[in-house]
Amino acid sequence: MMSGAARVFVPAHVTGFFSVHRRSDPLATGSRGAGVTLTDGAMVTVRPSEQFALRVDGEALTIPPVETVATELEATPAIDVELGAPLGAGFGISGAIALGTAFGINRVFETTRTANELVSIAHAAEVTAGTGLGDVVAQHRGGAPIRLEPGAPGIGKLDSIPDRRQIEYVSFGELSTIDVLSGDTDRIDHAGHAALQSLRETPTFEQFMRASREFSQDAGLETEQLRTVIEDVEAAGGLAAMAMLGRTVFAIDGGLSAAGYDPRECEMAASGVTLNP
Amino acid sequence: MMSGAARVFVPAHVTGFFSVHRRSDPLATGSRGAGVTLTDGAMVTVRPSEQFALRVDGEALTIPPVETVATELEATPAIDVELGAPLGAGFGISGAIALGTAFGINRVFETTRTANELVSIAHAAEVTAGTGLGDVVAQHRGGAPIRLEPGAPGIGKLDSIPDRRQIEYVSFGELSTIDVLSGDTDRIDHAGHAALQSLRETPTFEQFMRASREFSQDAGLETEQLRTVIEDVEAAGGLAAMAMLGRTVFAIDGGLSAAGYDPRECEMAASGVTLNP
Repeated sequence: MMSGAARVFVPAHVTGFFSVHRRSDPLATGSRGAGVTLTDGAMVTVRPSEQFALRVDGEALTIPPVETVATELEATPAIDVELGAPLGAGFGISGAIALGTAFGINRVFETTRTANELVSIAHAAEVTAGTGLGDVVAQHRGGAPIRLEPGAPGIGKLDSIPDRRQIEYVSFGELSTIDVLSGDTDRIDHAGHAALQSLRETPTFEQFMRASREFSQDAGLETEQLRTVIEDVEAAGGLAAMAMLGRTVFAIDGGLSAAGYDPRECEMAASGVTLNP
Repeated sequence: MMSGAARVFVPAHVTGFFSVHRRSDPLATGSRGAGVTLTDGAMVTVRPSEQFALRVDGEALTIPPVETVATELEATPAIDVELGAPLGAGFGISGAIALGTAFGINRVFETTRTANELVSIAHAAEVTAGTGLGDVVAQHRGGAPIRLEPGAPGIGKLDSIPDRRQIEYVSFGELSTIDVLSGDTDRIDHAGHAALQSLRETPTFEQFMRASREFSQDAGLETEQLRTVIEDVEAAGGLAAMAMLGRTVFAIDGGLSAAGYDPRECEMAASGVTLNP
C-alpha cells in the first residue's frame, strides 16, 4: 500500500574527531567520536513511483547508499532533496539523504519498520558504500552526539553533550571520505581515542572544540588553508575546528565572524530525523 | 562557578502500556512499554540560588525526585516551571521537571555531566520516589519511544515508532502512580508484555493505539468514565486510549473532536529535552 508524499528533515552532522572500527558485520562497523548536528541539513521528500529516482537541488544524482536503502526496503521511491549544507564537505549529507529516504519510504510505502531498523538499514548502506561510519546514528539522535561505541542502534552506544549552541561555518569544498577511510587509519585512530578520552573527562562543548582541533592536527588531516582559518579564529580569542571529512571550518560564539570571515550561521539541531517538519 | 538562568523544555510523556521491572539498582529498574511525547510539557527555568526552591505555575510545590536531583548534583537551584499539561494525570510531569532540573543545573552550575549521566540521575530519582519508571528515558528521546528494556541509558534499550501525529487529549484529573505501582503488578505485567509483543510485530502508531486500549482493559486500569470516552471515540470510527497513569484519554486523527469532546490539541514532540528552546 502507498500513500502520498512524505517530507523528512535530517540535520547535517559535523564530526569533530573519530576513530575507525571495522568488523565483518556492517551493523557492527562504525566510528567512535563526537560531532554536532545542525539546523542546516537535508529536506528529503519521498513520493511513490514505479522507478527509483533521486534529484538533489533539482539535479539527477547517483548516491549509492541511497539506492541501497531503497533496495533493502523493496521500494521504488522518487526522492527530491533540498540541501541546506553542501555535499562532500564534511556535513554527512549522503547519510542524511540515506536516512531521510529510509524514514520517507517507511511512511509512503508502509514498510512497517521501527526507527532503529530504518537507522540500521541506512547505517549499513553508508558503511558498505564507504561514505560514512557514524553520521547516520548521530543524525537520528540530534544534538551533539558522542559515539561511545561504534555501530547501528542496539550495537553502538551514544551519549551526548548537554548543550545547545550557535554554530558558524565556512566551507571550501570537497575532501574524499572514501580516500581517507580506505587508507591506513592508525594515526587517525590514535588521535581519535585521545580526543574521546579528553571529552569524556570534561564533556562540555568548549572541550569538544578543543579536542577536535587537536585531533585534526594530530591525525594529519588539517590542510594549510583550514589551518589558517582556524588560527585566525583562535587569534581573535575564539574556538574553531575542522569538519571531518571536508574542507570546512566550524566555530562557536561567533568566532568566524569575529575573525573577519563571512560564515553561514545556524544552530545545533535540537532533534534528529524529523517527519513532517 | 555559576552563570545566568537556563531554560529547558521537556515534553510530556503519555504511556500507553507498560510492565514493571524492579531490580535492587534503581538505574536497572524501570518499565518496558511504549508511549508518545508531546509538544505540551514542562518549561523549566533554573537559576543559581543559595537555597533550593521549586515553584510550579507560580506556586511553591514539593516534588521529591526534583529535590533528589538537586542533591545528587550538589546544587541549590531556584526552579520555576510553567506547565503545558496537568500534574498527576498521566503526562509524566514529575519526570519532566526532574529531567529539566538536571539539564538546567548542569548548565547554570556547570556540573560537567554528559546527557546520559543527567538522564540517569533523574531516572533514579523518579524510581526511588515511586513516581515513574519510564517517563524520563522517553522524555530524553522525544517522538514515540518503545522501551524495549528497562532502565537508564546504557542499561535500558529504546526503539521508537517512526511517525509523527497530531494528538488530542481530555483529562479528568489524578490517579495515584505510587498506589498502582506499589501494589501487585502481575496483571499489568502480563497485559504489558502482550501489548509490547503486538507493537513489535506491527510497529505503527495505529497499532500502538490498539495495543494501548487492549492493555488498559486487560490490566484492569480503565475506569468507567474513561471507558465511556474511549468507546465514544471508537463509535465515531476513531482510536483512543488511556494515559498511564491518569484519568486522561488521548486520541489520534481528531478522534475526540469527532466524538463531540472539546479536547486539548498538540503534536508528537519531534525532540526530547531541549535547552534554550
